[in-house]
Amino acid sequence: MAGLGLALLLLGLVPAGAVWPQPQLVRESPGGGRCRLSPGRFRFGYARSSAVGPGCAVLDQAFRRYQRLLRDAGPRGPGEGPEAAAALPGEDTRPWEPLCAELLVSVATPHCDGFPDMDSVESYKLSTSEDLSLLSSESIWGALRGLETFSQLIWRDEDGTFYLNKTDIVDFPRFAHRGLLLDTSRHYLPVRAILETLVCAQDVMAYNKFNVFHWHIVDDPSFPYESAAFPELSRKGAYNPVTHVYTLNDVKLVIEYARLRGIRVISEFDTPGHTHSWGPGAPGLLTPCYAGSIPSGVHGPVNPILNTTYQFMTELFREVSTVFPDFYLHLGGDEVDFTCWRSNPEIQAFMQRMGFGQDYAKLESFYIQRLLDIISSYGKGYVVWQEVFDNGVKVKPDTIIHVWRENAGPYQQEVARVTKAGYRALLSAPWYLNRISYGQDWQTAYQVEPLEFEGSPEQKELVIGGEACMWGEYVDVTNLTPRLWPRAGAIAERLWSNKTVRDLQDAYRRLANFRCTLLRRGIQAQPLFTGYCDPEYSGF
Amino acid sequence: MAGLGLALLLLGLVPAGAVWPQPQLVRESPGGGRCRLSPGRFRFGYARSSAVGPGCAVLDQAFRRYQRLLRDAGPRGPGEGPEAAAALPGEDTRPWEPLCAELLVSVATPHCDGFPDMDSVESYKLSTSEDLSLLSSESIWGALRGLETFSQLIWRDEDGTFYLNKTDIVDFPRFAHRGLLLDTSRHYLPVRAILETLVCAQDVMAYNKFNVFHWHIVDDPSFPYESAAFPELSRKGAYNPVTHVYTLNDVKLVIEYARLRGIRVISEFDTPGHTHSWGPGAPGLLTPCYAGSIPSGVHGPVNPILNTTYQFMTELFREVSTVFPDFYLHLGGDEVDFTCWRSNPEIQAFMQRMGFGQDYAKLESFYIQRLLDIISSYGKGYVVWQEVFDNGVKVKPDTIIHVWRENAGPYQQEVARVTKAGYRALLSAPWYLNRISYGQDWQTAYQVEPLEFEGSPEQKELVIGGEACMWGEYVDVTNLTPRLWPRAGAIAERLWSNKTVRDLQDAYRRLANFRCTLLRRGIQAQPLFTGYCDPEYSGF
Repeated sequence: MAGLGLALLLLGLVPAGAVWPQPQLVRESPGGGRCRLSPGRFRFGYARSSAVGPGCAVLDQAFRRYQRLLRDAGPRGPGEGPEAAAALPGEDTRPWEPLCAELLVSVATPHCDGFPDMDSVESYKLSTSEDLSLLSSESIWGALRGLETFSQLIWRDEDGTFYLNKTDIVDFPRFAHRGLLLDTSRHYLPVRAILETLVCAQDVMAYNKFNVFHWHIVDDPSFPYESAAFPELSRKGAYNPVTHVYTLNDVKLVIEYARLRGIRVISEFDTPGHTHSWGPGAPGLLTPCYAGSIPSGVHGPVNPILNTTYQFMTELFREVSTVFPDFYLHLGGDEVDFTCWRSNPEIQAFMQRMGFGQDYAKLESFYIQRLLDIISSYGKGYVVWQEVFDNGVKVKPDTIIHVWRENAGPYQQEVARVTKAGYRALLSAPWYLNRISYGQDWQTAYQVEPLEFEGSPEQKELVIGGEACMWGEYVDVTNLTPRLWPRAGAIAERLWSNKTVRDLQDAYRRLANFRCTLLRRGIQAQPLFTGYCDPEYSGF
Repeated sequence: MAGLGLALLLLGLVPAGAVWPQPQLVRESPGGGRCRLSPGRFRFGYARSSAVGPGCAVLDQAFRRYQRLLRDAGPRGPGEGPEAAAALPGEDTRPWEPLCAELLVSVATPHCDGFPDMDSVESYKLSTSEDLSLLSSESIWGALRGLETFSQLIWRDEDGTFYLNKTDIVDFPRFAHRGLLLDTSRHYLPVRAILETLVCAQDVMAYNKFNVFHWHIVDDPSFPYESAAFPELSRKGAYNPVTHVYTLNDVKLVIEYARLRGIRVISEFDTPGHTHSWGPGAPGLLTPCYAGSIPSGVHGPVNPILNTTYQFMTELFREVSTVFPDFYLHLGGDEVDFTCWRSNPEIQAFMQRMGFGQDYAKLESFYIQRLLDIISSYGKGYVVWQEVFDNGVKVKPDTIIHVWRENAGPYQQEVARVTKAGYRALLSAPWYLNRISYGQDWQTAYQVEPLEFEGSPEQKELVIGGEACMWGEYVDVTNLTPRLWPRAGAIAERLWSNKTVRDLQDAYRRLANFRCTLLRRGIQAQPLFTGYCDPEYSGF
């Protein structure tokens, strides 16, 4: 059996049960029963018991997606080209074996619209068997997770016949926030055109059961967000004001594409640092730095001492709060360089007046607190990078602190401090996927245990999850996808699966197999190590 | 002027002179003269003085290629889509500026056929001006290099007009052997299908003026070469005997594609180690390892004590010598693990008989020397990895020793030893591009100086060049191209340009610009750092 498993693995096939990320509970039928599956005739539908039915766009569209994946991206037998696949080989070649005909979905709560949020219930139960497979869930979001699992249970033997093993699955995520950060400032990632990087990423996120897309949309190098209130920001701050921007339509497209896959979109407009590209389109917003007693012509962080700054932020974030429907906004707040503030005589005078002495962290806090008040007034919650907490800024109790620093002592200690103070923590420090190294570095990311820090059970409850970060210094549309997948999959499993799912060899076997599934789905995912998939990647 | 240069660079445009790799001598016309260029009407042709003319396939086809690149891949102005490019904007928008109408090529020696070799003369002179530009060279191979340079001299202003600055170039390579190693055993790289990785790589090699493709075609994990003499080798040793093989036609396709671009193809069938995949298709070839007094079922390196081994090698390399026309074969000889040989009682007995004692390097030498004799009998020369030299194998004086080990002391000392012994050296130790790291690692590769070792001028003469190596453990069709380009370009310039061309800032500027040129030519080359190209990569 181990031998057969290996043979099937070498063919890019594995028997049922090899789902990524690993479900919480999988029980294959002891009798080892299985049914054939005819991709052309298999049907997805709603169970009678379901509180949602035809017309529920999220599920209607998901049924079509998975139908198409089954048809186009089923594992192929050796030596078959695309033509062979189009002819649906495997149909009725073994009429004596039972046929699995349909999957019925039953959702308990009658909600079809709206967006997933932090409290969405993503659990589901899946029971596959001859004739009828059943997927039941509390919400449509859980049904989406179950559909993905179902699609991964289907495998194909060497003759090209599709099979589904009789399997019972009970599944739910370990953490509520399972995110991926992409950075569209350091390099522009296209939404349309031939390579739809940003929307395509949502597909693969859903295959991995990620549920948060953290859109680090602007930063020092460029400002691609086309603001209705301040159109000059992208006109003067984007790499190219026509080709390298995200229009309101682009943003809406990404948000809707993500929603249909059960993915939240959290935008980040990072201030007061990381705002160099804001300067040209917002005169007076950034602090003029001084060389001695005269302005040097260079600008630093947002100028925190002017009322106009807060008027600007009020307008900008009014727009951002509307455009991005998620309850949370990511407000940044990391890496504020005090050099420029220190050089500016008006800022020095302000520090005097406020009694801040030489403590520029107090000035930063002053700015951030006013910004948080603005955001609160729009009824939004916020996520901030850890410095905001480290600098003692007074934040609302439900603020999420994003732990990212690797060189400021072990990140576990920071998680302990944050949760001890009663704040919720989001972990990214060990998951900077942009920091590549030679070899199987997915293993390091995989072996992280987010709750391994000194703290009470209540503190552990405050860790809401984590995010894989792909910062853009060295990444653009040419290399994002292979660098991201399947490496980010390691983090996806850590955030979804049971704490006990840690076996590296088993993970390797399943992740290598999942990589082949991604190739069949047209995703340019890179290899874990020596080996092959059948078929290999062949474009989209 | 620096400001203008920066602005043009930011637009993905740079004025003439920004050629990669940097030519030996570039002189822009002091008057700064330039002419407009109409991609649709520009003509490539032969000068009357040329010893070759129409019908010379290498140049006829090169003219067509560069004509197409001009038309399809000219830098575009901001905001233009593919449609705009098809309409050839820039035609006749400035009729008052002189038009450059044609490039005439003059080749001195009347040879049109055959293959480039180690002695091919690749120098050329290029003089561009209004009406007529002239490219003259000793051989067709030099003309190819000059055509590439010419194509990189063309730039475009913000209005979309193509320009060519009046420029005189005298150019020749610093080293004769400028290679790239690709490994098609650890992962299969397709020749056909949608992604023609192996042939596509030849295109980009030519853009970089590389002239040797080192095809590490088989190794432990798989044997994709379809041998006429021993078809079982790939039938049982390839990942898939139908989809993951190189047929004779595939190999011929690669060799001819490379030849037309002035690139030599050197095959490597590495023995006696790295041969695990040979075993299933060649019973008796590999050494049976022993566990105590009985065979363990595992096999080690090629069995060097059997006559059948040498009969096999005689047949296989007879075929390989014919299929691969280059004078040189790479015979491998690296990393032979003696454990299995030591365990085998028949090998022990043979060692006794031969008086080798316990020195298994002597057994390795015994094997390699017989193999070299076989190769010599076919009138071929050979390249071997450094261990063959290190182990004191007696090789022909014209053998090339390939220096690759990084952990056996500084590679400079090995180069010194090899050349002191009178052998030619080929450098790869500092150029393992598969070993990725975070950041701008192209700089490390760029800063290598191949002749920086202790030795006489005669020794320095023996360094024939180097090779960038992209081993395949973590690389397949999904990530090869972005991982290779433009990083390998750093090595291309080191091997082509003058020793004095070392300025990192200038190299960054030109390489970033060259990367944008590669994108326009449809090559998925990754960014060096934060920034953008216009247009970005948009598929092929």
